[in-house]
This record gives sequence, structure tokens and C-alpha cells, in this order.
Amino acid sequence: MSLRNTLSFLLYDWLQVEQLSQRARYADHSRETFEAVFDTCERIAVEKYAPFNRLVDTQEPHFDGEKVVLPQATYEARKAYAESGMLSAAQDYELGGMQLPFVVDSAANTFFAKASISIGSNMLTTGNANLLMAHGTALQKQVFAHNEFNGRFTGTMCLSEPQAGSSLSDVATRAEPDGPDYEADPLGPRYRLRGNKMWISSGDHELSENIVHLVLAKVPDANGKLVPGVKGISLFVVPKKMVDTQGQLTGERNDVVLAGLNHKLGWRGTTNTLLNFGEGKYPVRGAAGAIGYRVGNVGDGLRCMFHMMNEARIAIGMAATMLGFAGYEASLEYAKNRPQGRPLGAGGKDAAAPQVPIIAHADVRRMLLAQKAYTEGALALNLLAARLVDEQHTGDAPSAAEAQLLLEVLTPIAKSWPSEWCLEANSLAIQIHGGYGYTRDFPVEQYWRDNRLNMIHEGTHGIQANDLLGRKVRMQDGAGLKLLTQRMKATAEQAKQWPALADFAGQLTQAWDQVLHTTALAWQWNDANRSLANAVPYMQAFGHVVLAWIWLDVVCAVQTRSDAQLDAAAQGRMACAQFFFHYELPKIGAWLQVVQTGDTTFVDLIEEGF
Amino acid sequence: MSLRNTLSFLLYDWLQVEQLSQRARYADHSRETFEAVFDTCERIAVEKYAPFNRLVDTQEPHFDGEKVVLPQATYEARKAYAESGMLSAAQDYELGGMQLPFVVDSAANTFFAKASISIGSNMLTTGNANLLMAHGTALQKQVFAHNEFNGRFTGTMCLSEPQAGSSLSDVATRAEPDGPDYEADPLGPRYRLRGNKMWISSGDHELSENIVHLVLAKVPDANGKLVPGVKGISLFVVPKKMVDTQGQLTGERNDVVLAGLNHKLGWRGTTNTLLNFGEGKYPVRGAAGAIGYRVGNVGDGLRCMFHMMNEARIAIGMAATMLGFAGYEASLEYAKNRPQGRPLGAGGKDAAAPQVPIIAHADVRRMLLAQKAYTEGALALNLLAARLVDEQHTGDAPSAAEAQLLLEVLTPIAKSWPSEWCLEANSLAIQIHGGYGYTRDFPVEQYWRDNRLNMIHEGTHGIQANDLLGRKVRMQDGAGLKLLTQRMKATAEQAKQWPALADFAGQLTQAWDQVLHTTALAWQWNDANRSLANAVPYMQAFGHVVLAWIWLDVVCAVQTRSDAQLDAAAQGRMACAQFFFHYELPKIGAWLQVVQTGDTTFVDLIEEGF
Repeated sequence: MSLRNTLSFLLYDWLQVEQLSQRARYADHSRETFEAVFDTCERIAVEKYAPFNRLVDTQEPHFDGEKVVLPQATYEARKAYAESGMLSAAQDYELGGMQLPFVVDSAANTFFAKASISIGSNMLTTGNANLLMAHGTALQKQVFAHNEFNGRFTGTMCLSEPQAGSSLSDVATRAEPDGPDYEADPLGPRYRLRGNKMWISSGDHELSENIVHLVLAKVPDANGKLVPGVKGISLFVVPKKMVDTQGQLTGERNDVVLAGLNHKLGWRGTTNTLLNFGEGKYPVRGAAGAIGYRVGNVGDGLRCMFHMMNEARIAIGMAATMLGFAGYEASLEYAKNRPQGRPLGAGGKDAAAPQVPIIAHADVRRMLLAQKAYTEGALALNLLAARLVDEQHTGDAPSAAEAQLLLEVLTPIAKSWPSEWCLEANSLAIQIHGGYGYTRDFPVEQYWRDNRLNMIHEGTHGIQANDLLGRKVRMQDGAGLKLLTQRMKATAEQAKQWPALADFAGQLTQAWDQVLHTTALAWQWNDANRSLANAVPYMQAFGHVVLAWIWLDVVCAVQTRSDAQLDAAAQGRMACAQFFFHYELPKIGAWLQVVQTGDTTFVDLIEEGF
Repeated sequence: MSLRNTLSFLLYDWLQVEQLSQRARYADHSRETFEAVFDTCERIAVEKYAPFNRLVDTQEPHFDGEKVVLPQATYEARKAYAESGMLSAAQDYELGGMQLPFVVDSAANTFFAKASISIGSNMLTTGNANLLMAHGTALQKQVFAHNEFNGRFTGTMCLSEPQAGSSLSDVATRAEPDGPDYEADPLGPRYRLRGNKMWISSGDHELSENIVHLVLAKVPDANGKLVPGVKGISLFVVPKKMVDTQGQLTGERNDVVLAGLNHKLGWRGTTNTLLNFGEGKYPVRGAAGAIGYRVGNVGDGLRCMFHMMNEARIAIGMAATMLGFAGYEASLEYAKNRPQGRPLGAGGKDAAAPQVPIIAHADVRRMLLAQKAYTEGALALNLLAARLVDEQHTGDAPSAAEAQLLLEVLTPIAKSWPSEWCLEANSLAIQIHGGYGYTRDFPVEQYWRDNRLNMIHEGTHGIQANDLLGRKVRMQDGAGLKLLTQRMKATAEQAKQWPALADFAGQLTQAWDQVLHTTALAWQWNDANRSLANAVPYMQAFGHVVLAWIWLDVVCAVQTRSDAQLDAAAQGRMACAQFFFHYELPKIGAWLQVVQTGDTTFVDLIEEGF
């Protein structure tokens, strides 16, 4: 199935997104306007992204002593994307936006992600601008966010430091008030920042007029000390080049220096940088220290930054998913066209018969169907999550609250599950190609390398698992978990009406009961370290049951929409659901068992025993 | 634990390798001589291999128009290896060998594999020469094999062709008698070969005086037709440069041409080539066609080639294992030294406390112990397999026959299990490093890329699975399976005497019963295609139970050798066994279930449904 057809089914038949046009914000929209957006995105992705995916891998960003050098294709891809209006697609009409639902925006971006995940890093720019729209002053929005939406500027998020990766409470970048009049600057309270920021994607390049860094830093207390922990963190907008209140470059360079480019395993189309703020190389306005304007209140930085976290994590889940999808497409094409071997006949193999395409071999089909079940399931989950974002923003109050709650619980899964299983899908895509898959003449090895990032950035697997078991399933006395339980029950109830799905409904209910039972047992120890020791296996099981639910819900839509005779696409979806219930769901027992017993095997071992 | 200490325990305490010196062939050997070999190998690996592992990845082999260019380090690594005598370590004294047991030879080679898997490809040369020792004429041994053992020549195995990868029955390289006197050549019946060979590792380079290709090709029948199937395949020794009966180069070049170098995802220190035989670029002795000398009888080529298969597959399993081990070492070192975050205290985290090394975090410990359990378990399995090779060659007749039988059953696991799970170990090593693991400044991403080859070469995962379920567990009326059952029972019986192991003994017995039960059910359909459709999940479950057995057997040795108080290394081994029984063994249910029911989900789906 093509991505386009898969999206059509999931958006219109499953998620009923056309109904969104009944809401005032989306009143001008319809299936036709959505499809027009998809036409544009698919065309740009095919013309400006896909042909250069290998190029951006081999022509890695480098620094020539003055500036970062990127292939011409990267400039053209960015230009086409910006001109398409996709940077502001979800924004208000007044801002030049299309007021596109986030779910449609997300779906439209899958074409780019599948074509070349790393050539564009527009998600960062949109995320940066969205954050400013939520927390910035009117002028910060106008000067920075609007110019990101219109394509003049690009954006980054500067959280990590060399000594503070997952542990943001250890951020050591200092922000000190810039002179006695620091609060009087029209762009916001003005500070001087000094520190180093690591893993900054798109941290330096010449793709845009300016780069808008959003930087976490700490304001020293009266004694000049930084407050330990995340409470001391504030947020600053730090432009690479200084701007006036009209958003025009003043010609001054800010004191932000590229200290190094990271050389990565994959995802090489995007620069990833170490940036030094305020090292004094480019003194600005007569002094060292990078000038930054505070966004929000002192000490409120992490809360502001996390505003965008759900959307960002869905975007990462979607990136992993589309890399999986790309590998599936490539290996399906290969399997249909590569002749090799013969099936077993009644009397063994007939060596004189012509070879068959490898899709005739059961094990190749297993690897194809696994990829399809992983990637299309992950796509469905992430579209559902995106649809919940829309509900949160435009639904009536009770519905919005429910959507937010469900989204909180599902986000760690929407991010982690595709990162793990669509990576596995990419490995299967390599395997189907045999030796050819191990060469750089075929695209699948790059997908696999690119995808390995997704379990690391935007919160590692371990961080997601702690978030899920430590916070999300427990918050508001388990309200999120209860809501998810209701949704699963509703799906199972619906599924029971079709004989083909009744068994799956029973299996889902049973599996989810195990998860609920395990969740309770996980917290029996009065010892958070022990409860969370097996958070990752817990998340793996939780994720697999969520995906089983998603698949069951998707094939309910198949059954609803179909006549007795299922077409090929519907048969494919039914086979995915069956694969997931037969091959995948039974895996949860092994993961849950160690959570239930509070297994401490690796906690107990003395360090010298490793 | 260092590799050296781990090997010592497994070889001396577990496998009782010192007892081999009671056999005539190994009478001169003792723990001291083995340790002297390890000293040498470890030193060369540390000095000549490890420092250049990244270099050979970045300075990939290239063809300058005349010859293949490799880094100087590759020449020096090969020289040091050849001078160490390791090429002929297992050979007779008369051949300049050391008469080293294969298990010790294998253990000695782990140092090189861990230091740089791809800088050396000596295994191919040894394998090539061993094959000639088994099937060649006296002169073929002297001219080719001896000069491979002494380091003058290197060797290749030329099986695959562009249209014949896994399907060797489709080999299309033709070998035609070279003139009426073709049978009179002292080097063996002389043929002219024409065809293309793909994926030939070390297929062209300047590392040695000459390259000895062992080539599968078909001799046309009386009508000039090639016999379909594997029965038509014969084996030929085809030197890159012609040699006389003294093994001296005659100055003539043979008609073997490098058609291209493959550009791989990893394992880049070794050239991988497409070779054209007999395309006429280098006519030799007045005619086109590469000159080759037949080894063994016409039609007997695959049998001869498979002679070396068990050893080669153990070597691949060992390669995968040592890449896993290298990643484990690197990530353990990182985890001990990287400060990040704080453990949860009674009242939550104390943000003002100093950061702790990440080995203090439970999830990092989980990822470390999983790596240790995978890689040390895989190492034990492969050393056991190597020990069985020795038993097969030097044991008394009944013991040799048993060893051969057990080896037949275990070989697909010794090859496939490390390929899958030590790759997973490498992924965990990346994860422990966080963002740094995704950069090329740390070694773990290369290990992961290098390791991805092992599920592909020397028989793919699917081929191994078909071999296991289709042949090995059924041969001789299940004799191999029965023998393995006896061994497992013996281990379980032994383990029962220690309270710490009694539970594991019960779990092993129960798990193995499930495998036996499933094996019977797998063949209930009277339809080999259905029986083998789920051969890979079957192999995954089989492999996991084998590893559980291995770990239980290893910790029996721990208990036997230890006083009541276990030292750190012993505690580490006990923790691995516990990890394997708690976290890994329970996974088998999901894999076995689909075999038991003869699941045909992916077989039934129409092609258009994918």
C-alpha cells in the first residue's frame, strides 16, 4: 500500500478527521483541502527530498573555518518547504497560516520524513516558534516567531550541555542581567549568557537569515550562585545575529560560537553542534557574553520548554515510523523483483524450474508483514496522538481535558515504541536485501542508521519509561490509566460483533488486565528505585498492548467500512492485526513478569561483578 | 571482567581444556603453552589491531585503477598475525604448526576479533587451506595450502554470484576442460572458468604474494549444458597469479579481474569484491578463461566446500560475540566514568548532591547485565562448539561421533544466536552512551554496524533456521536432538544439588520440554512449507533455551569451583545466569506458539495486500 492510501484510510475511515471541519477553526477545510496539501507535500518530497537522501548522508556538514558547508540540495529542499507554507500550516490565518489541524499537518509531514528524515529540520523551527507563541511577549512573537513561520529565520532548542544530558537539573549556563536597565529592553529582559550547549541540531548553518536559539540557563542568586535543580532554570531567546524591534538584522553578530560539529552515525543531513555562548570571541555591544532575552518568568524555563514536548515527541515517533515505512517500501519492492531460490514442491525442490521472486518465500513474507504491522501500527498511533492534540486545542472543555489526559499517557509510547520497533523493521528490511542490504548501493542501511537516533534524542528510552511508570500512569490517582482502560474496553466491545475480531478482543482485554495488575504490583515496594528498576520492560509491554489496541481499533474500521469481501488493502490490514495478536502480543508476559516480582538482579550485583 | 579472565574461567574451569594434553596430539601442551599463545595474541591485538579499528573504517579500500589500496596498518596487522604463527596454529608440527587444539585456537583469535573484526581476514585463509588439506591432492596441499599457512598466500571462498546468493544451485560459472591433456596437469585437472563471483571477501588486494581462490563452478555435460541444482557443482582452486609446482610465481597473471569493490555498512577493513573469472582481460597461456585446478571429484564441490562450514559458522558466531564483547567493555567503562543524574533518595532527588556515575542507575545496569549475559553466554557456547570440533577430531570413536552429532545441531545456534543478540548488545552499548554513542567519536556505533553483517553472511538467519528445523533436529531420526536432551538433563541434574540453581534447573527442563513438544508439532502438517514457515521463531526459541542451558552449566562450574563466598567474577556469572532465566528464557513462549499452531498469517496474505 502506498503511504498516500494508508494515510487516507487512517485519517478519513479510521480517525474521521473530516468531522473536524465542523469546528469553527477548521470551517474552511475539507477532505479536498487536506488532499491538496498532501499533493503539494508529496510532490516536494519526491522532487526535492528523496533524490538527495543519500547525498546528504555522504556529504556531511563541515566547517570551512568561516561557515558551515551544506550541499546545495539542502538549500533547495528548505526553500521549497518554506515556500509551501508548511512552516506555518497550523497557524492562524492572520499569521499567514492555513489553520490546518495538527493531525493533518503531521500527516503532511510524513512525506518529507519518508523521503529524507535529515535533509530538513523544520520541526525544530516550528516547535521553537510555537513555544514563543505560547510564552513569548507580543514583540518576541512578532520579531522571532513570525519570522520563523515565514521562513526568514530558523530555530533551535538548546537544552543539553556536555555535563548535562538527560540530567537537565545540572545545566550550568549562566544568565546575568545585562546592565541596570536590563528589564527595559523592548525584546524582553536582557541578559548575558555564558556556557556551552551540546547536541544542538541546526545549531549553525547558512540556510536562513538568522538562527533563533531558545536556551535554558540559570540566573545566579544574590550570592552569585546557581540554584541547584530544575527550579533554577530560565528560558532565553538568543539570536545568532542581533535584530531590531522590526525583526531586521542590525549587522551585529551575537557572541554565539560554533565550537564543533558532531559526526554522527546517521541523520547526517542535519548539523548537530556544540555551541559556546559568551566565550568572548564576538563581543557584542561592547562586552562579552551572548545577549539573550528572557522568555517567561525566572525559574519557569523548563515548564515553558516542556510546553512543546508532547508535539516534539510525537514528531520523533513519526520520524521513527516513517524511516520504518521507507524501509518497508524498499524491501517490498526488492522482494517482488529479486529472483532467488524456489519453493518446496511435493517432491522437494525442482532445480530446473526458474527462480521465484523472494516474496514467495515464507520467511521473507514474515519479515515484510512484521515491518508492515510495526510501521503502519506506529503511524496509526502517532496520528491518533496528533488528533488528540487537536482535540485538546479545539474540543469542548470535557473532551479537551480527556484528550490531554490520554495524550499524557500515550506520549511516551508514541515516542518510544516506533523508536524501538521501526528500528527493528529497518533491520528486517536489510535482512530481506541480503548482502545487498549491507551495501550503500541500497537505501535500507541508511534508514537503519538514521533511525538509531530516535531512542536517544527527545528523552531516551529510559527517560520515557520513567515518565510512563513513574508519572503518567500514577498522575491524578491513575486517571489517565483509567481513561485508556475505557477506550480499550470500548474497542474490545465494538470488535466483538465481528467473528473475525472476537478472539482479538478477548486477548486485548486479558493483556490489558495484566498491565493494570502489573502497574499496581510495581508500586508495592515502598521503594521508588525498585519500582522503577524495570521501567523499560514495563514500557515495552505497555507499548505492545497499546499497539494491539490500535490494530484492533483500525480493523474495526476495516470491518465497518467493508462489504463482506475485503479488498487487498483491507486484507493487508487484517493480516497485520492478526500478525500482531499472534506474533507480538504474546511477548508481554516476559516483560511484565520482572516488573511484578520487582526483580533486582542487576541492582544487586556489586559493581566489580560487571 | 577482562576477556582474558573470562576465557580462563571458561576454558580451564568450565571446559577443562587442560585435559586435552592427555591426548597424544596435544601432549606437549599445557595451560602454560596456551597462556603463552594468548599473551602473544593479546599483545599483537592491542598493538597492531585495536589502534587502527576506526582507521580501517574511515579509510575504506579503494581501487586506484591498477590495484586495491589499503591503509598501511592493514599490512602491518597482517604481517604481525602471519609472523605469530597463528595461520597454522592448529596444524601439524611438520607443517610448521603448533598442534594447538581448535578451542584454544578459537579463544586466541578472540583477541583479534575484539580489537578489530575487519582489519584481518585470516579466518578465510586458514579455512581455505584447511579445505585443501582435507580434499586437495598432495601437490595442491603443498603448493597452495602450505603457502597459505606460512603467510605467503591468502585465500578466498568464491560461492555466491550476483544471481545466486542463498540459492547456490543457481551457480552459473562454467568450468571447461582446458585442452585434451587437461587431466595431466600436476596441479590437478585443469579447467578454464568463466563467470562472476559476488561478495568475495579479500577477493583482491596486495597484502600477499598471491591470492588462492576456491571457486564453485559447473562443468558442462556432453551437450554443453550446466546441470541444474547443487549436484552439478564442482570445486576449483584458481590462483590470482599462476604458480609452478614449487609454488613459485611464474610471472603470468591469471584471468581473474576485480570488477568492483562493494561499499559496505561496516566491516570495512576487509575488501569485499565482485570478481570476473575468464572475461578475457588477462589471457593466460594464450587463451581467455581463468585457469583453475579441480579439487575433488566432478559434482562434489558443495560437499567439499561444506567441509569447512561448521568451523566457518563458529567463526562467524565468534565474530558477532566479540563485537558484542567489545561494546560491553566500552559501555562498562563509560558507565563507570560518566557522571549524570542522581539516584532517587527517600525524599526524591537531592539536586545539590554531586552527580553519580551512570552505572548507579538501574536501567544502565540492566543494559550492562544484558550485554554481559548475551556476550559471555555466546562466548561460552562458541567455545563449547570449538571444543566439540576437537572431540570430533581427537576423541575416541564413540565420543567423536557424539561430538559431531551435537555439533551439527548446535552449529546453527552458535552462528545465529550471537549474530542476533550480540547485535542487540551493541545497540544497548550505544544507548548507554546516549548522544555520544551516536557519534563516531566513540567506538560503539562501529561495532553495531560491523555486527549487522553476521546475520547475513555464511548463511542468513533464514538459512540457519531452515537448517535447524528442516534438517538438524530431524536427521538420524532425531538423534542429535536426543543427544542434546541428554546433555541438558545432565546439567539440570547437576544443578539441582545447589539451592541457588535448583529453580533454574526446573525452568530449563520445562523450557526444553516445550521445544521438544513444539518440534514434534511443527512437522504435523504433511506440508514442509507450512512446517518451515516459522523456522526463524523456532530457532529463536531453541537458541534461547540453549543459552539458558549454557549459563546453567557455566554456573555449575562456578558453584563447583567456589567456596561458600563467591568472588566478584563469580557473582557476575551468577547474576548473568539469573538475568537469563528471569528476563530472557520467558520469551520463548511467544516464539514457540506460532510454530505449534503452524501459523500461516503471512503465507496466506495475497501479494497485493502487502
